Amino acid sequence: MKTLFKNARILKMTGEDIFFGNLIVDGNRISYIGNEIPNDKYDQIIDCNGNVLMPGFKDCHTHSAMVFLRGYADDYSLQEWLFGKVIPAEEKFTKDDVYELTKLACLEYFSSGITAVMEMYYFPDMLRKAFLDMNMRAVIQLQATSYLNDGKLEEYYQTFNEKDSLVSAKLGLHAEYTSSPEDFALIESLIQKYKSPFYTHLSETKKEEDDCLKNRGMSATKYLESEGLFDYGGGGYHCVHLNDEDMEIFKKHNLSAILNTGSNTKLASGIPNVKKLLDHDINIAIGTDGAASNNCLNMFKEMALVSSLSKVTTGDPSFLKAEEILKMATVNGAHAVGLNDCDVLEVGKLADIIMIDLLKPSMQPINNIVKNIVYAGSKDIVKMTMINGKIVYMDGKYNIGEDIEKMYQKCQQITDRLIK
Amino acid sequence: MKTLFKNARILKMTGEDIFFGNLIVDGNRISYIGNEIPNDKYDQIIDCNGNVLMPGFKDCHTHSAMVFLRGYADDYSLQEWLFGKVIPAEEKFTKDDVYELTKLACLEYFSSGITAVMEMYYFPDMLRKAFLDMNMRAVIQLQATSYLNDGKLEEYYQTFNEKDSLVSAKLGLHAEYTSSPEDFALIESLIQKYKSPFYTHLSETKKEEDDCLKNRGMSATKYLESEGLFDYGGGGYHCVHLNDEDMEIFKKHNLSAILNTGSNTKLASGIPNVKKLLDHDINIAIGTDGAASNNCLNMFKEMALVSSLSKVTTGDPSFLKAEEILKMATVNGAHAVGLNDCDVLEVGKLADIIMIDLLKPSMQPINNIVKNIVYAGSKDIVKMTMINGKIVYMDGKYNIGEDIEKMYQKCQQITDRLIK
Repeated sequence: MKTLFKNARILKMTGEDIFFGNLIVDGNRISYIGNEIPNDKYDQIIDCNGNVLMPGFKDCHTHSAMVFLRGYADDYSLQEWLFGKVIPAEEKFTKDDVYELTKLACLEYFSSGITAVMEMYYFPDMLRKAFLDMNMRAVIQLQATSYLNDGKLEEYYQTFNEKDSLVSAKLGLHAEYTSSPEDFALIESLIQKYKSPFYTHLSETKKEEDDCLKNRGMSATKYLESEGLFDYGGGGYHCVHLNDEDMEIFKKHNLSAILNTGSNTKLASGIPNVKKLLDHDINIAIGTDGAASNNCLNMFKEMALVSSLSKVTTGDPSFLKAEEILKMATVNGAHAVGLNDCDVLEVGKLADIIMIDLLKPSMQPINNIVKNIVYAGSKDIVKMTMINGKIVYMDGKYNIGEDIEKMYQKCQQITDRLIK
Repeated sequence: MKTLFKNARILKMTGEDIFFGNLIVDGNRISYIGNEIPNDKYDQIIDCNGNVLMPGFKDCHTHSAMVFLRGYADDYSLQEWLFGKVIPAEEKFTKDDVYELTKLACLEYFSSGITAVMEMYYFPDMLRKAFLDMNMRAVIQLQATSYLNDGKLEEYYQTFNEKDSLVSAKLGLHAEYTSSPEDFALIESLIQKYKSPFYTHLSETKKEEDDCLKNRGMSATKYLESEGLFDYGGGGYHCVHLNDEDMEIFKKHNLSAILNTGSNTKLASGIPNVKKLLDHDINIAIGTDGAASNNCLNMFKEMALVSSLSKVTTGDPSFLKAEEILKMATVNGAHAVGLNDCDVLEVGKLADIIMIDLLKPSMQPINNIVKNIVYAGSKDIVKMTMINGKIVYMDGKYNIGEDIEKMYQKCQQITDRLIK
């Protein structure tokens, strides 16, 4: 399959200016960027009419199947939310439920311009199947934490990390405070055996940090480091309550801070200190978290929140430029979760590409395209989403070989059963 | 013109549950809501297929023509932003520029589901013409502040307030700190003569409040009250730094606090205290402010910011329910700016109606429609926008009798001239 995109504004995200020209995708990789149209046979030719091609967004922390809780668990205290709503509903679901709901989430990723996710949830084999069936790129974070782990952790880790698959796997824990000594022993052995990076929910609430200090005499980050879990890098989701020493540990081990601002504000967990993270030269990426705690899988909302909160909490409107935020949502995200071939638009990179519609009124006039995308963008500007060389979404239509309304009906039935 | 909407989920915003049935618009008003389809001749019949009809959003503070500064004046300090970028560009524009740019903003209002704005800018007669030509409902806030006032304030006030016009006018100042004693004298006389409500930028930055205290020995709100300007109600835009006494004045005079959170965070002005405003039982409405300080005209973004900031600053995830926020963005907004006939969907009300597309993945599954709209909504869920009985936007297409791309080109030329 060979696709020619012509007359595109190409925002490579390499730091260069936007390049006007043509881009060719051969199979699942970018094979050409330039002014010419090489004489060749193309399976599809798309005239971009000056619209923007850029790398897709990387949603670096999500629980896709939690879409079934959207609108069901809002405006409650954290305790009611978790123990009264989320957990009782999750206790009921089957492997098939998780499969169908994960597929529903993929539709939202596609229409939001998200071309890869870092996923964490129950039934990793079903997550993998759903992502493969939908042509969604995903890194599944496998859990040593026993309640999320069906005993096949190492087997999954080996089989999921097939070369050239859309789906890969990383290792981690659910969180420091939800993992038993046995969970820790298991993950420590695997991290060392595979020299693997380590990912976890980290420093999301003040309570968990206070508890860790009381129980272990140190912060969660310091404890995880002391156990050798960060020996090969990795990252933390949330990172709201990191202290200076934690940030030094992040820098020392080249860990990524994966921000989930929509979730942290919905659940009133706090506001991560972006300025301090940048002062410590830490790689910052962005995730949506699951729909139960957001409620959408929309990186435009997350970029707006990161920007708005950073400027207002520092009191400095010049802090955190649009260019840096867009980098967090794309390039930094790819690097944070090990998708180094999906970071920028360059020859040889994987073809995870979105097209931004400049003919939407919020993108006009064109003074600065990056600032328009970050500060005025919303889902309606996503004209096309290509993952691994395949167009999965274009002009509001999904190219997934399934009837969308039937998918909705199926997921509504599942939802009604789970939350009744 | 008679329009039948059938099979709709009707979210009246009256506090009742969503009603499933049919809605008829006769001329510019709603003539029927019910289960029947009255035997009649309809000019258009729209099958909503279960999608939602609800009142359009009221953007209660904007400077529409400032769209030309979108992406041009970002990530600067407030001083650089205002004196280095905004004012030098504004000094150059003509009446025709303002007319064309205001029309461009209308496209964004339509696609965002905004059916009415409270507008404040130069050349009120051109604003009015642009809104009338675009079929946009607008309340133009006329300024006694001399640099915005071309000497025809009272004439405009009289002629704009024609019965049944899409455009009406209110009186006010630009701000306490930008108005001369003559400006105050003029507005005071008009407020008393016409027993008119009064609107102004108010308490946006800490600096302006500190200066007012130094110069006048009291807060801006107290000073304006002492001058009799709030005798007939009205409201303030921003309201970030109101103190308790100011809020009591707001309540006493039934003033509305019109929040502009996107602007206040972009310019790092601060975070309004929504909890205190509600504790004082003050009507809260929402505005986008102009695109130079936002950068978009998108009430979904504003609702997300009001929600996120309110929950995280109070530390209470149960604070400020979705239902309250949607009311701020619609009903409260209508009441804040005197559009009492555009507040809810009821027989006899003006037909300012939007349709929400429930077949977007972010709206699925359907556990709670209002929470979905507020917490997971974005511009792509706006399927239709009707203003005053006329459909101006549907399925991504504008019904305005003009070529959109030509409008873009014209506005780009204007922009290039103004900011070069």
